[in-house]
Amino acid sequence: MTTGGAPLRFCFDFVSPYAYLAWTQIHALAARHGRAVEPVPVVFGALLDACGQRGPAEIPAKRAYLFKDCVRLADGFGVPFGPPPAHPFNPLLALRASSLPMPEPTRRALVDRLFAAAWGGGGGLAGPAEVNEAASAAGLDGAQVVRDAGAQAIKDRLRRNTDEALAAGAFGVPTTFADGELFWGVDALGHLERFLEGHDPVTAEQVARWAALPATAIRRVAGG
Amino acid sequence: MTTGGAPLRFCFDFVSPYAYLAWTQIHALAARHGRAVEPVPVVFGALLDACGQRGPAEIPAKRAYLFKDCVRLADGFGVPFGPPPAHPFNPLLALRASSLPMPEPTRRALVDRLFAAAWGGGGGLAGPAEVNEAASAAGLDGAQVVRDAGAQAIKDRLRRNTDEALAAGAFGVPTTFADGELFWGVDALGHLERFLEGHDPVTAEQVARWAALPATAIRRVAGG
Repeated sequence: MTTGGAPLRFCFDFVSPYAYLAWTQIHALAARHGRAVEPVPVVFGALLDACGQRGPAEIPAKRAYLFKDCVRLADGFGVPFGPPPAHPFNPLLALRASSLPMPEPTRRALVDRLFAAAWGGGGGLAGPAEVNEAASAAGLDGAQVVRDAGAQAIKDRLRRNTDEALAAGAFGVPTTFADGELFWGVDALGHLERFLEGHDPVTAEQVARWAALPATAIRRVAGG
Repeated sequence: MTTGGAPLRFCFDFVSPYAYLAWTQIHALAARHGRAVEPVPVVFGALLDACGQRGPAEIPAKRAYLFKDCVRLADGFGVPFGPPPAHPFNPLLALRASSLPMPEPTRRALVDRLFAAAWGGGGGLAGPAEVNEAASAAGLDGAQVVRDAGAQAIKDRLRRNTDEALAAGAFGVPTTFADGELFWGVDALGHLERFLEGHDPVTAEQVARWAALPATAIRRVAGG
């Protein structure tokens, strides 16, 4: 699986339906290019805070739209999609559970179950009972997972994951890092695939030109 | 062209490279379904202000990313793409010029030229000279267009376009309204096409369920 290169680092938060949708696709995409997937739980809210931006579900018109967008994407992918019983919900316990030391196939099964609970028409991720149930379904001791997820070292690990993603340029979820290059959102999966095929049209010269452009109009930005 | 139904209302701002990319695709898409395209100039900055959100180019990490995303999208579409000499720039004169009364084929040619100047590798839209040149290339009296674009009635029209887009649910550009349904961004063009084919998977029941969901976690939002 890993003969083709370094694993794809898939940064996600269970609170994001787009992260769920990308999760349903990333493994097959990675496998087509001999890559493994490294799931990296991060705190979406902290990424938004760091960028001074609102989340898509925090703008009423966008919140209404993004749900339809996700229904359409899920239909195109042929995967189940249904909202959790509450949204936004607090994803921290599920993110911490996903950050515990465990064999990678088990982690994938756990993340699968947690995402299914959140966005695959399951019962949601509102509290310890739901995380326990998902962990048990993934073959773990659910009660133990819930207890271990509260450890300071695990909280620190999740915070470190988030800080590292920010430092590497992430501003949202899902974000996939492939050989240091960042791909944001479900809509970038096609771009990621072409990158892995060696057909990325972006040149360093173009990027440098863009970075050096002067601005001739600056808006007084929200929150700025 | 219009036998299939009402025109698609395409809301755009020249400051957005995604609006340019969608403009290069929307006419063929509309024609495949017997629809006309009604170009609706709107002020992106005013949409962002109304939603209390930052624009993508106002978040440094996102600004760096979105350019690469656009290069990749343009490559996929096979259309020219190059940044203007400055960005962000003030698009108001170009938007007002596009709002003047004129025959629709001429308006399409004008918008084509203005977008090409901004994002198709042209000389930018920084001032009256560039707008004059684009209008002249579209077969208009460029100097007259620049003068007429300063009229209060035209300024009011652009403001009204923007207010109407907001009232209809728009939160960004490009936004295409088809029979009252909103499609945001280049990435939604596939969804729009399926909608026009009569294959939209979204149901009123799903939308109502999403709208009624309680929130169990609220972030203190940026700018809120």
